[in-house]
Amino acid sequence: MARKRLIVVGGDAAGMSAASQLRRLDRDREIVVFEKGPHTSYAACGIPYFVAGLIEKPEQLIARTPETFREKYDIDARTLQEVMAVDCRGKTVQITDHREGRSYSMEFDDLLIATGALPFKPDVPGIDSDGVFGVNTLESGIALERFLRERRPTRAIVVGGGYIGLEIAEALNCHRGLKVTLVERAPQVMGTLDPDMGALVGDAISDVGIDLRLGETLQAVETAGGKIRAVVTDKGEIETDLVVLGLGVRPNTALAAEAGLALGVRDAIRVDDRMATPTPSVWAAGDCAETFHLVSRQPFHVALGTVANKMGRVAGINLAGKSARFPGVVGTAVSKICKYEVARTGLLEAEAKKLDLDYSAATIKTRTRAGYYPGAGRIHVKLLAENGTGRLLGGQIVGVEGAAKRIDVLAACLHGQKTVQDLVDMDLSYAPPFSPVWDPVQIAARALLKEV
Amino acid sequence: MARKRLIVVGGDAAGMSAASQLRRLDRDREIVVFEKGPHTSYAACGIPYFVAGLIEKPEQLIARTPETFREKYDIDARTLQEVMAVDCRGKTVQITDHREGRSYSMEFDDLLIATGALPFKPDVPGIDSDGVFGVNTLESGIALERFLRERRPTRAIVVGGGYIGLEIAEALNCHRGLKVTLVERAPQVMGTLDPDMGALVGDAISDVGIDLRLGETLQAVETAGGKIRAVVTDKGEIETDLVVLGLGVRPNTALAAEAGLALGVRDAIRVDDRMATPTPSVWAAGDCAETFHLVSRQPFHVALGTVANKMGRVAGINLAGKSARFPGVVGTAVSKICKYEVARTGLLEAEAKKLDLDYSAATIKTRTRAGYYPGAGRIHVKLLAENGTGRLLGGQIVGVEGAAKRIDVLAACLHGQKTVQDLVDMDLSYAPPFSPVWDPVQIAARALLKEV
Repeated sequence: MARKRLIVVGGDAAGMSAASQLRRLDRDREIVVFEKGPHTSYAACGIPYFVAGLIEKPEQLIARTPETFREKYDIDARTLQEVMAVDCRGKTVQITDHREGRSYSMEFDDLLIATGALPFKPDVPGIDSDGVFGVNTLESGIALERFLRERRPTRAIVVGGGYIGLEIAEALNCHRGLKVTLVERAPQVMGTLDPDMGALVGDAISDVGIDLRLGETLQAVETAGGKIRAVVTDKGEIETDLVVLGLGVRPNTALAAEAGLALGVRDAIRVDDRMATPTPSVWAAGDCAETFHLVSRQPFHVALGTVANKMGRVAGINLAGKSARFPGVVGTAVSKICKYEVARTGLLEAEAKKLDLDYSAATIKTRTRAGYYPGAGRIHVKLLAENGTGRLLGGQIVGVEGAAKRIDVLAACLHGQKTVQDLVDMDLSYAPPFSPVWDPVQIAARALLKEV
Repeated sequence: MARKRLIVVGGDAAGMSAASQLRRLDRDREIVVFEKGPHTSYAACGIPYFVAGLIEKPEQLIARTPETFREKYDIDARTLQEVMAVDCRGKTVQITDHREGRSYSMEFDDLLIATGALPFKPDVPGIDSDGVFGVNTLESGIALERFLRERRPTRAIVVGGGYIGLEIAEALNCHRGLKVTLVERAPQVMGTLDPDMGALVGDAISDVGIDLRLGETLQAVETAGGKIRAVVTDKGEIETDLVVLGLGVRPNTALAAEAGLALGVRDAIRVDDRMATPTPSVWAAGDCAETFHLVSRQPFHVALGTVANKMGRVAGINLAGKSARFPGVVGTAVSKICKYEVARTGLLEAEAKKLDLDYSAATIKTRTRAGYYPGAGRIHVKLLAENGTGRLLGGQIVGVEGAAKRIDVLAACLHGQKTVQDLVDMDLSYAPPFSPVWDPVQIAARALLKEV
């Protein structure tokens, strides 16, 4: 009897998590993974730190190579091979092998689509010039790092003030010593925060010497003699040696759409909480797949390695015939910009308004440790809760070292549908090196308690 | 009409929190606080760091002085005045003014007992010698710090391997450069951890150069020429210049017992979740009061500043005629010993056994940050959960910087009666400087999921 075959499209976090999980539970299944790039299973989130020079070799970002998957997991991971088309009814995929320059097809019993996300790229003149970099794949990170070493640029423009843009701006400014200008179209950095909390991050950015240009839009990249010379924005020209695009990503689902799979929020592939699509035998996981927001109770999309890993694990368990569910997310994220830490979970004010929720918000400023303990630094905590019920809706934190990981307590509260009063009562840990006697999230909860 | 009078016995965390909270809600009440020591409202938890020399002046540990309470809060805080007896029926207290050497009585409408805790002191010869110190009051911390500066001792014995003992051992060893021997009667340090996790702390203690003597009992303190010369234990003699007792505390409830108040666990004063005792118009809060353990569902006692503050706040709100409840604790605690961090919440294995719970445990070892990120250090996480239901019962963490505050996520899970599966699914924050892609507590949850 032939072994049942799973084909996985995409060999990074979600795809390889699913494949490994399936292998742990089922020794017989044939598993073939097609990855269009040269690497499998790498930590895309680590790329800014490789660019910063904090990580010596790009190989350190690779969790497992195709060889490891083949030898230790009996997973046939084929790199530089791209799935060009999927026939869901005929249960066949068409593959182009970029190394050999040939095409072939392969049948599947189950198909997992884990094609990840694609970076936004502004459609402006000069955007494909040598010296313009993305940072969403390991190859692009390696190319940027080589450019920094070989060309020794002194000025950089980073386009985009979200997590990726800020992390790259940190890498180039704080670690590589370049003069960095950050260009962001919106009136605030970090659009995943409320404007008031985003402004604190903006101040932090300026504080470390990054030239922050808000409300400014990239219009062209200009070159001279084959090198980047400047960027042109709606407000003028900024000279630079280098441009890095950090504009966020969208689900990479052109292949899925062509195959007739249902798409949802932001064109992410629709899946149930088992990671099954509505199309029989076809599954999806990771940055290309839709998820569910447990606070708004609506379909949602987020591109994060941690969610991709969780989805992959659940897909793998279900593919093995066992049962697992991924209930959804609460919108948690964290980032570090030089000495500043930023975190968020749940809903923003704008999102709460859009959902017509009657809410209150409170923001407090305190210290990360007991005030008398050395190294106590600033922390700002903002909380949102529903009026009447007191149900916690979201939280945002901006502060120095030790500030941001507190967001996990708020995430746990959102998962548990806890109220502000519950948070005030919670038995959180205290000792002077770790916290004021009331944890900052509880100080914020006490302030919010007066409002709701 | 005469103002209604609240008398508070004890002017530290619980007593002053209650008094301040009442004043915020009721501008008319007369509030008189009797504190037998010279200070009000100080951070007892900060004493080890003052002894360490990390905090310059003892005044930095005082949140509010009696003058501040008088002038800003209209609270009559009388220091060096001790309540000697309480007549609950006659609603009168007897006070001795140690400064003036006189006694007087005062009537109350309401009485709040916040007498705190008393340190254990072994009943052995020489224990009252000059050079033997406790560290549970600010005065004792000041005396020890002065001894260190003036006598310049080079060797110290710390008796007791709980939080206080370890923090003082850190202060003397890591910050003051003394040769420290820690004597602990039990076969492990940190009895609030399971033996396997306690052993990790023991290793950490030895690792920083502290001479750790487990299973060894203090029998006498020996002096020569008015100075400490050595301690005698059941295993021999250890020469030293200084002895510090860090043996933990018990509720200070002799006054309450004499007044006929009901006592509960460890002789702590019985209170309901409003902090009212069964005796009309008499309230209790802080280290002298009983609480409730939300995991074991049994009465419990814990002496911690964070719990005392919460209890005081609730007492103050109820004293003002409004309604607040303190549901209880889950047994959360955290401590730092040199570069090591230790935390715990919920039940230990021994406690789960005593409650006849059918449970499983899992312990994992991983890194505080992404493995490739600079500064990623060791973290050990142990979780306990009930078999069948999967309900989380407790967690323990030992690791380096950034490890311990994760205990708060586990505490939130215990408050929410979450299962191990809930914890695996939780949307916790991830970025390489903060965590591996699966947070260590989730890696532990995944390991435990296989068992329950």
